[in-house]
Amino acid sequence: MYRPQIKVLDCTIRDGGLINDCKFDDKFVRAVYKALNESGVDYIELGYQASKKIFSPDKFGKWKFCDEDDLRAVTEGIEKKAKISVMVDIGRVEKSEVKQKKDSIVDMIRVAMYVKEVDKAIDLVNYYSEKGYETTVNIMAISTALMPDLEEALAQLSETPVKAVYVVDSFGALFSEQIHFLIEKYKKYLNPKGIEVGIHCHNNQQLAFGNTIEAIRMGANFIDATIFGIGRGPGNCPMELLLSFLKNPKFKLEPVLEVIEKEFLPLKEKMEWGYILPYMITGILNQHPRTAIALRNGKDKDKYADFYRSFSSKEEMD
Amino acid sequence: MYRPQIKVLDCTIRDGGLINDCKFDDKFVRAVYKALNESGVDYIELGYQASKKIFSPDKFGKWKFCDEDDLRAVTEGIEKKAKISVMVDIGRVEKSEVKQKKDSIVDMIRVAMYVKEVDKAIDLVNYYSEKGYETTVNIMAISTALMPDLEEALAQLSETPVKAVYVVDSFGALFSEQIHFLIEKYKKYLNPKGIEVGIHCHNNQQLAFGNTIEAIRMGANFIDATIFGIGRGPGNCPMELLLSFLKNPKFKLEPVLEVIEKEFLPLKEKMEWGYILPYMITGILNQHPRTAIALRNGKDKDKYADFYRSFSSKEEMD
Repeated sequence: MYRPQIKVLDCTIRDGGLINDCKFDDKFVRAVYKALNESGVDYIELGYQASKKIFSPDKFGKWKFCDEDDLRAVTEGIEKKAKISVMVDIGRVEKSEVKQKKDSIVDMIRVAMYVKEVDKAIDLVNYYSEKGYETTVNIMAISTALMPDLEEALAQLSETPVKAVYVVDSFGALFSEQIHFLIEKYKKYLNPKGIEVGIHCHNNQQLAFGNTIEAIRMGANFIDATIFGIGRGPGNCPMELLLSFLKNPKFKLEPVLEVIEKEFLPLKEKMEWGYILPYMITGILNQHPRTAIALRNGKDKDKYADFYRSFSSKEEMD
Repeated sequence: MYRPQIKVLDCTIRDGGLINDCKFDDKFVRAVYKALNESGVDYIELGYQASKKIFSPDKFGKWKFCDEDDLRAVTEGIEKKAKISVMVDIGRVEKSEVKQKKDSIVDMIRVAMYVKEVDKAIDLVNYYSEKGYETTVNIMAISTALMPDLEEALAQLSETPVKAVYVVDSFGALFSEQIHFLIEKYKKYLNPKGIEVGIHCHNNQQLAFGNTIEAIRMGANFIDATIFGIGRGPGNCPMELLLSFLKNPKFKLEPVLEVIEKEFLPLKEKMEWGYILPYMITGILNQHPRTAIALRNGKDKDKYADFYRSFSSKEEMD
C-alpha cells in the first residue's frame, strides 16, 4: 500500500510504559528513538505528559511526565527526522504545565478521551493548538461507544484545529467489518474539514495488524504501531509488520529488526506481552482488560476456562 | 458469523506434527480428540497417511502413518461426534495401502498438492472416493501459483467428486485483499458444481485469523484451525479465536480453553511455535520457511537483521 499521505506513529515507549509504569531506562529509550528515526516513521511518542500533582514520581518513571529535560537527554546527539509526540489523558494533566511549542522538542500532543469527554478534549485541543502544537484526539474504548454519542463527538471535533481523530480499539474487540464501518463513519465527518482519521489497535484477538490493514484500505492515514507489538497485555500492531506492508520506500525495516534483537529480546525475558489467553478472553467479550491484568498477577494466571466462566456467572441484569 | 454450512476442521495433531515429526504421545492426542469432540468442530485431523515404504517409522511418530489400530487406540471410549480426517501428500503415499472406508474410522482424506500436481491429486481423489471416503484437495503455496495454472487446476477439480478445495497460504504471505481475490476465483469454478471452498492460513504475519475471517466473509465454508495456533514455525489460525468468532451455538469454547491450560502450556515449554521473526521475514518475502527453520536450529537464531539481509544479497537474476 503506497499512499504518501500515510503517517506512521510509533508509540512503543508510551504504550509499552503501561506495562512497567513508564520505567524504561534511558539507554533503551535512546536505542528505540534512534532505530525509529532511521526507520522512517513520522512520529515517535515518548510518553505521557501527566501532572506530578496527580501522579507521584516515586511510583512512576519519567516517561509518565516527559519533562523537557528528560526528553532532550534521550534524544540529543541523534538526528531528529521524525516528529515527537506525547499523550495526555483527560483529567490527568494540568494544561498550564505544558510549555509553549517554541520551548519544547515536542511537536504533537495527543489527547486520549472517552467519547463522553469530548468537550474536555476540545478544550485541551484548542489550548495546545494555541501554544503551537499539532494535536490529535484518540477516542478510546470505541467498541463500547454509543453511535449518537460518537456522531455528536465527531461533529464537534470536526470544527476544531485537530489534525487527526483516532479509532482506538482499546479492548481488542473489533473485527474488520466493524473497523470498516467506523473508519467510514469518521471519514464522513472529518475528511471534508481536512482532518485525518487514525487507527490504534490492540492485539487481544491477533487482529491488530489485520484490522490496521483494513483501516488503511478504508482511508485511515494516521497509523499507530509499536516495535515487536509491545504494549500492555496483548500489545499492539507490530511496527515491523506495518513497515513491511507499507510500500513507501522511505520506510526501512532493518533498524527495527536490529533493535528487536538487541533490546527487545532481553526485555521480553522480564516483561510480559503478546498472545495471552486471559486478554484474548476480555477481547472476545469486549471488556476492559483490568480483570485479565489482575488474574495474571495472581496464582490462577493460567486458569483460562475458570476465568472465562467467571464472566457468565455474574448476577442477572434487568 | 452464523452460517450453518460452515465446517470447522481442526488439524492440531496433523499440522502440529510438523514440529515434532508426528511424535505426540497417546495421552496428548486423546486429550485433544476429546476436547475437540466436546467443542463441536466438524472434523478432527489426526495425522498423515504416509507410506512406510517412503518414511521410516524409526524416524517418524505414528501420526505420520495413522495406522487403523493406532487411530482406534486414541479414540476408543470417547464419544465420536466429529468426523476424522487424515492428510496425504502427493508422492508420499501408496494408495493401495488405504483401507476401504467401511473398515476404517477415517471419514475424509485430504490430498495436499502443489498446483502443478493437479492430475496426480485428481487420481487420488477419484481413488479414495471410490473407496468410500469424503475428499478435499488442499492447494499448497498458493501465494506462488501462476493464475493460468490455478484456473486450469480449478476447472479440472470442479469435475471431480471432491468435497472442498482449499486456499492454503503455506508461506503466510497473503493479505486480506489477496484472500478476497482467491476465494472469489475458487468460488467461481467450484460452487456451481456444489464444491465448497476451504481456507488454511499460516500465521507468519499474525494474519492467520484475520485472513480466515476474510475468507469466511467471502464464502469459504471449510475452515482450518489448530488449538492455541500450534503448527510449524508461526503456526496456524487459533481454534479458540475461530470458535469465539463463529456464532453457531453448536461450538463450545470451554473445552478448548481447558485443554490449552492442561496440555498445551506444558507442551509450549518444549516446542516452539508462534510469532517468531525469522518466520515473519520469510512470510513478508513470500518464501518457504525452510531457511527460517534452519536459522532457528543454529546459533544465529536471533540474528533477524542479518537473516533479512541474506535474502537481498543473493545473486542477481536475469
